Amino acid sequence: MLKIILSGCNGTMGQVIKQFTKDDDSIKIVAGLDKFPEKYNNNFPVYENPRQCKEEADVIIDFSHYSAFREIITFAKQHKLPLVMATTGLSDKNEKQLQLLSKEIPIFRSANMSLGVNVVLDLIYRATKSLEDSFDIEIIEAHHNKKVDAPSGTALMLAHEIKSAKNETSHFIYGRHGKQERRNKNDIGIHAIRGGTIVGEHTIVYAGLDEIIEIKHTALSKNIFAAGAIKAAKYIADKENGLYDMKKLLNNE
Amino acid sequence: MLKIILSGCNGTMGQVIKQFTKDDDSIKIVAGLDKFPEKYNNNFPVYENPRQCKEEADVIIDFSHYSAFREIITFAKQHKLPLVMATTGLSDKNEKQLQLLSKEIPIFRSANMSLGVNVVLDLIYRATKSLEDSFDIEIIEAHHNKKVDAPSGTALMLAHEIKSAKNETSHFIYGRHGKQERRNKNDIGIHAIRGGTIVGEHTIVYAGLDEIIEIKHTALSKNIFAAGAIKAAKYIADKENGLYDMKKLLNNE
Amino acid sequence: MLKIILSGCNGTMGQVIKQFTKDDDSIKIVAGLDKFPEKYNNNFPVYENPRQCKEEADVIIDFSHYSAFREIITFAKQHKLPLVMATTGLSDKNEKQLQLLSKEIPIFRSANMSLGVNVVLDLIYRATKSLEDSFDIEIIEAHHNKKVDAPSGTALMLAHEIKSAKNETSHFIYGRHGKQERRNKNDIGIHAIRGGTIVGEHTIVYAGLDEIIEIKHTALSKNIFAAGAIKAAKYIADKENGLYDMKKLLNNE
Amino acid sequence: MLKIILSGCNGTMGQVIKQFTKDDDSIKIVAGLDKFPEKYNNNFPVYENPRQCKEEADVIIDFSHYSAFREIITFAKQHKLPLVMATTGLSDKNEKQLQLLSKEIPIFRSANMSLGVNVVLDLIYRATKSLEDSFDIEIIEAHHNKKVDAPSGTALMLAHEIKSAKNETSHFIYGRHGKQERRNKNDIGIHAIRGGTIVGEHTIVYAGLDEIIEIKHTALSKNIFAAGAIKAAKYIADKENGLYDMKKLLNNE
Repeated sequence: MLKIILSGCNGTMGQVIKQFTKDDDSIKIVAGLDKFPEKYNNNFPVYENPRQCKEEADVIIDFSHYSAFREIITFAKQHKLPLVMATTGLSDKNEKQLQLLSKEIPIFRSANMSLGVNVVLDLIYRATKSLEDSFDIEIIEAHHNKKVDAPSGTALMLAHEIKSAKNETSHFIYGRHGKQERRNKNDIGIHAIRGGTIVGEHTIVYAGLDEIIEIKHTALSKNIFAAGAIKAAKYIADKENGLYDMKKLLNNE
Repeated sequence: MLKIILSGCNGTMGQVIKQFTKDDDSIKIVAGLDKFPEKYNNNFPVYENPRQCKEEADVIIDFSHYSAFREIITFAKQHKLPLVMATTGLSDKNEKQLQLLSKEIPIFRSANMSLGVNVVLDLIYRATKSLEDSFDIEIIEAHHNKKVDAPSGTALMLAHEIKSAKNETSHFIYGRHGKQERRNKNDIGIHAIRGGTIVGEHTIVYAGLDEIIEIKHTALSKNIFAAGAIKAAKYIADKENGLYDMKKLLNNE
Repeated sequence: MLKIILSGCNGTMGQVIKQFTKDDDSIKIVAGLDKFPEKYNNNFPVYENPRQCKEEADVIIDFSHYSAFREIITFAKQHKLPLVMATTGLSDKNEKQLQLLSKEIPIFRSANMSLGVNVVLDLIYRATKSLEDSFDIEIIEAHHNKKVDAPSGTALMLAHEIKSAKNETSHFIYGRHGKQERRNKNDIGIHAIRGGTIVGEHTIVYAGLDEIIEIKHTALSKNIFAAGAIKAAKYIADKENGLYDMKKLLNNE
Repeated sequence: MLKIILSGCNGTMGQVIKQFTKDDDSIKIVAGLDKFPEKYNNNFPVYENPRQCKEEADVIIDFSHYSAFREIITFAKQHKLPLVMATTGLSDKNEKQLQLLSKEIPIFRSANMSLGVNVVLDLIYRATKSLEDSFDIEIIEAHHNKKVDAPSGTALMLAHEIKSAKNETSHFIYGRHGKQERRNKNDIGIHAIRGGTIVGEHTIVYAGLDEIIEIKHTALSKNIFAAGAIKAAKYIADKENGLYDMKKLLNNE
């Protein structure tokens, strides 16, 4: 049984992980860390200050906030705890600190914990390598009507993956309207649909001469990020020091 | 057997109709009209000047050009020929002339001759009436990479149909990027995908609370416009004077 | 504020309705009925026996079980309570009893409470009327890997709606394999995808000459049935006696 | 300029290649071989008997029929002509003969010449390796209403590729109906849609816990097989002796 300390346990993703794991006998959340320790009733102790946390654990999962970054890595370092870092919005400096720290503890880092999205990243890298000469590439994403940013962070991650696979420099195009000009071969069109309560869809379209390949990822709930984080936690719990990501996990490295 | 005069017979759609009908025993193209009468080998006489055309026919189909409008309607009026007017780009004044002329001959008028697109127009009118209160509506269209205008004329036709069905005034939104603002309830997002040789796809998305309805039309070739024009020709050949459209044809009025 | 008695409140759909309405000030669940009154903590009284229920209400929603049918309609009749009957598996005799009872109280009856599915039923009736001559019709549904029946009840409901709209007698075909024979014009192919945790997708494909129309409904959660039931409850609360359904609600009759 | 001998030039695919290449200055069809040499007017000589063909060429493309197999490979061997073998229905013995002959001439062999389908084969192999533990896999194909076999050869090719990537033995399931049993983890559901003039669609669905990945290939015309054959011809024209396929071409080996 894997013993987990859950950082950011009273945030949205923290509670999703709590619900997601409550009937899973292979793992146990032994403690939580959160700025608002009283916000929810949890069946484990929650500490505002990591120093108060004395529970023994095999791994720490962080889904808190980039402002807590220093506190969390200090805690992980002191306790020699393998760390799954799932918080978004980290600075380049933070990412370098993770790299440095990974010489002392095993660290798993991914900006998107979904297994599926990471498989799609791998697939589009390969597809782009094979198809870039003769296929046009466009990305369509769809999210709920309360999302304020467009395109989604995941759509941009996909676009950058495609860009990195292409030999030619490509440009992102966000919406077309009235332009009396043809598509440029190296454009990557990115389109943001908004409506209802759509959790998250991302489609990559490769359109060539009389054939089309589409790769689509659909999220039905935030559970996919919980599932990925737990998978990552089990994966690094007994790994040697180093920096790991979903690509390595998927390839069983 | 229906005898047809094909106006614009040496244009793209004229040749599509020629190919499309060549094995159909229920119809026969008896003559063609075209500014470039020698451009193709046709198995019917082609006249540059309509006045030279003496063949008897049951109906005239016009797929020529809006600049030939006056010539064509004069010809149809003189010969009391039922007219299928499929040319795009007509002015409001032209449309009024058609209305007037329809007191003397039966006229079929549609800006899009595809049976399927017209059924979709009917469906989204009804869907919008039922769903507008609680569903967000977006339109996605996809066409080949040589198309210079965006969005497509058909996408705009669909958007205007939705707008006409809604009680609230709606606004068309062409692409979202970086906007730090939520979707407005009465926005209709319109997205133009361009790539490869895609003939034409139009998807209307209704996204509500935890459910999504999508209505999608896919064109595989320009034959759909030929099929619609022939259907229209058979439909008006023995109709009384008046103005007809695809809605009437679909409802067998 | 609409006061509701929720029959079957401790079943799956009962609890979904409870969660779905808990922040909605326009409605209030004043009492529940259930064979297992202690199963959940509810913020309203729950009675095993309807006769114990003395709360005043504007409408009763029944999501219990067909075995409780007689008890529920007796209760509704005695209290002159408008009734939303959402239970599945009712016999033809039950349906007739509802019809009879609707002379004494307003009754809303639908086998599928989703607003979207009912809109789709309306759309495919119309689409089939317009397209049946020249389009082939197929249905594809997808559900989670724990569903034991195939095809889904909703897929069959859609298939029967199509059949009722067609002039020619049509036959349902469940899967094709190795058959050395062409598709029959009046076949309706029905295909059942099973996998993962898919909540429910239903696509109706109309494939004609070089054009395809697809109408797709996607459910993201069971909330759509709760939303439909609440909409129905508000709709019949002040209606005259009679039998109502989603078609009437959608048309504001 | 690449000089091509086109075997089976008066078959469907032969004529598609003729049309497809007629404006391409980088290639020239110098002669054709066909059992029915007079069937079409071609702008190159066509021979019933390969021995009559004296034209010099860089490569031979065979799209004829498996019954002509021996004749074609004898011809290629005698003239030391690089061979693109695109004929379907070859026996295992034939395939072995190709392997043997590839020691004397370069041979390109693929049962499906579409670039896109071969990229999809590569993608699903990788996707299956990453996802097989926790995702269910289903295949949906759609073709025109005149196709007599089901499922399509390409669907079976895809299914076998998935099977070869899985550790567990998997079983193909063709249609579900009324079965009161849950999906087996190692089933691969295969569904054959038939309707209208659909050229060919193949979708592979990976459905996991609250996420779905779909990989879809759409063919808009038979040109995709011509494009692949030409690409293959250019690729092997100056290769060393050996057996080549689309995987090698895609990886630039």
